This record gives sequence, C-alpha cells and structure tokens, in this order.
Amino acid sequence: MKINTWPIPYMVEDIEDSTAVVIDVLRASTTMTAALVNGAARIIPVRKVEEAFALRESMENVLLAGERDAIMVEGFDLGNSPYEYTPDVVGGKTIVMTTTNGTQAVAAAKDAADLIIAGFVNMSAVVEYLKAADRPVAILCAGTRGRYTLEDAACAGMIADLLGGEDLCDFTRACRDLYRAHKDELSSYLKEGVHAKNLIRKGFVRDMELAFQIDVLPAIARRNADGSLCMY
Amino acid sequence: MKINTWPIPYMVEDIEDSTAVVIDVLRASTTMTAALVNGAARIIPVRKVEEAFALRESMENVLLAGERDAIMVEGFDLGNSPYEYTPDVVGGKTIVMTTTNGTQAVAAAKDAADLIIAGFVNMSAVVEYLKAADRPVAILCAGTRGRYTLEDAACAGMIADLLGGEDLCDFTRACRDLYRAHKDELSSYLKEGVHAKNLIRKGFVRDMELAFQIDVLPAIARRNADGSLCMY
Repeated sequence: MKINTWPIPYMVEDIEDSTAVVIDVLRASTTMTAALVNGAARIIPVRKVEEAFALRESMENVLLAGERDAIMVEGFDLGNSPYEYTPDVVGGKTIVMTTTNGTQAVAAAKDAADLIIAGFVNMSAVVEYLKAADRPVAILCAGTRGRYTLEDAACAGMIADLLGGEDLCDFTRACRDLYRAHKDELSSYLKEGVHAKNLIRKGFVRDMELAFQIDVLPAIARRNADGSLCMY
Repeated sequence: MKINTWPIPYMVEDIEDSTAVVIDVLRASTTMTAALVNGAARIIPVRKVEEAFALRESMENVLLAGERDAIMVEGFDLGNSPYEYTPDVVGGKTIVMTTTNGTQAVAAAKDAADLIIAGFVNMSAVVEYLKAADRPVAILCAGTRGRYTLEDAACAGMIADLLGGEDLCDFTRACRDLYRAHKDELSSYLKEGVHAKNLIRKGFVRDMELAFQIDVLPAIARRNADGSLCMY
C-alpha cells in the first residue's frame, strides 16, 4: 500500500485517487469523533469564523463550534474540548466547526477521493477502514500554525505501522520509526510535545489525556458528498 | 540554546533574532559550499529563472547556475552538481543560482538576523559557527517541492545533537532522535530517501555520495548585507 504523509497541510498534491486521513490529535480529530459518537447529525468544517456565522443564518438546528489559540470563539456555542460535546448538547444537531489547524487540513484535502478524520481515539477503526478501502493513503497532519507537531506525526506513524505499507514517502517512514521507538511509553512521550504542554498550561489536561487514549471511540468522521462529516 | 526547525520553508516566523541555517543536502548546500571553496567570489541566490537572466544582463563576470527537477536550466552555464564547480570554471566568478528548493529556502529565511548554508559536508564548521554566534537557531530544511526529505531532517538532527540545545521545538527533537537512531549507518540510511533514489536514477550518484560525507568542505556560505552568499 502506498502511503504519503504531510507534516503540515501545505502543498498537498496528487491525492485525487487517495483516501485522505486528516489528523489533528489535539484536539479536532478527537472532538469531531466524540461529537458524532454522542449523536451529532453531522459536522460542517469551515475555514473562517465568518463562514460559520453565515451558515448559522441559513440553517436550522445548528451549533457553532471551534477555537482560535485553544479558546472558544466569541459568539460560538462550543469550544474544541471533546467533553463539551455531550449527548444532550449535540444530539441531532449540525455542528459548524472551525479550528486553528484541523479544519484547515480538511480544506487542504478537498481533492481526495475520500476523506476521514483520524486520531488515537479511533485508531483501529481507521486502520480497518483503510485496509478495506484499498486505495493509496494520503495522511495530512494538521500541525500547529504551520509547524510540525509530535502527536500528529506519531499518530500518522502508528497508522503506517499498523497498515504495514511498503511504498512510503520519507515522512511516512520517519513517522513510523518515531512511533516504533516510543510505542511502549507513547502517552508520556507525547506529553513532552509543545502543543500538549500548551494545553496543559491552559487547563485542558483532561482533553489531552482523552486524545492520547487508543480506541476509546469506535467510530470515524467521514466526508459526505456535500462536504459535511458524518459517522461511519 | 533555542533551536526551531521547519521541515519545509513555509510559514517561517519569529526568526528575526536567530541565525537561520538553510539545509538542502541534495544538492544546493553541498554545491554552494563547494563553489566557494573552489574560488567563486560570491553566490547570488534568486528564486526565479527570469531573475537570473536579468541579472546576467546587468553584471559582469557572472555564471548562471541551477536546476529544475535536477536538470540544468536551458541557457544556464552550470547545473546543480558540485563537481561542475571546479576552480578553473568558478574562480573569481559571481554565481547567480536558482534551484527547485534550496534557493527558495534562502528566500524564506530573509528576516533572520544572520544566515548560513549547512550540509553534512561542512557540519563541524556550522556547529562551531552556531556555538560562537550564541543566538537562537532557526533551521530551515529545504525539502523537495513542499515535502519533507530524509537527508535534510537528518542533517538538522545532527546539528541539534552536536549543539546540545535544550529548548527544542517538536520537529527539532524528532530530527535529533532520527539522527541518533541512524548515526552509525547514516549514509546507507539516507540512500533510502526518495530524493537520493531520484538522483541515483538520474545519474547523479557521485553528487549524492559527496553530499553525505561529513566535514569534507571546511567552509560556510554566509549571507552578506547585500544578500549574496560569501565564504566564511
């Protein structure tokens, strides 16, 4: 299986025949998956805050969600903490979401044949999906403001390791080797990352701890024909 | 010492107080260093082929150099193979150079307080320079067309390892750990990279082998006030 991986969602090309796998471990991947597991009807990822406000005007049963620099956007209904997305809050709702990095990565993957959201929380489901799809895999790490992040790279590496692909780009190999070197103490290793430390400092320790757990959310957010993400 | 590293020269910010270290192991770092060691007066890096042609009209004693997709640009005097830059060819000349990745990375580092070009070929000289300068270090890997490349990441990692910095961004740590994991078989490991394989396929094996040698060119291409690169 062919696996290409991008450290940040920039100059993403030649993915028309691929399944795009968007990874933003902290926190969009985790939060989107949690929202759908807890009953949200769909997630509409948008790049800009203004787009979110405009969509609220034109739709019903909508919640606006997302952050800039980890903090909820003023006037929105939800931030980017998975614990906010409880069944009573999100059940049956359309979540219009914009985040600093995750939803930007979704936009960068628009040309892909198929698109799913991956994190540690739904690792096995993602790997099974990719094996069954049997297409080339294009992993887009969201990173943080154009910078490589440890947890996204390690998550990409875990996917590559479990898929067992052989046609790997340089970055896929580097991620896989990073994951293999630290798989036995993964969570403590990831806590050393710049983004994790930033979340700890801002009081989001529980979010981080959830995001680093493996297979606790057995579902996948997958792109529909209309561009929204629904549970697979 | 603070070390930030970018896998590709994109969204490079907050480097005004830093020494920028531009790495394009295959081949611009190696070729630029070789050109200066062999007597070139200076190198003027430009982003576009048209800029190079325009500069030839306005200057004397100039050679145009560079490649697109590893092949010399039509109408240029030199490609991007260090072996072309012999003393009889480049002695006393101004080299106007544009390459697919390396000169783009130099442009992305324009805001840095200082700028040098690094490769394996001048590793010790680079590390000594950075220790003496005692500024924050901003390492820009050139990558290949927006993609991470193994040899640039490993070179960044070797610099970080030898500098022994402690304030490292996630990518600096990942590069350092990659280097440490493969330092005992570095050359054979780097030959597995996509870019190295591409050069081998195109007949540039000697260039690659030179580029992976450590400390064979004891000099550094360093940016002057006018933006040209001269030997330090």
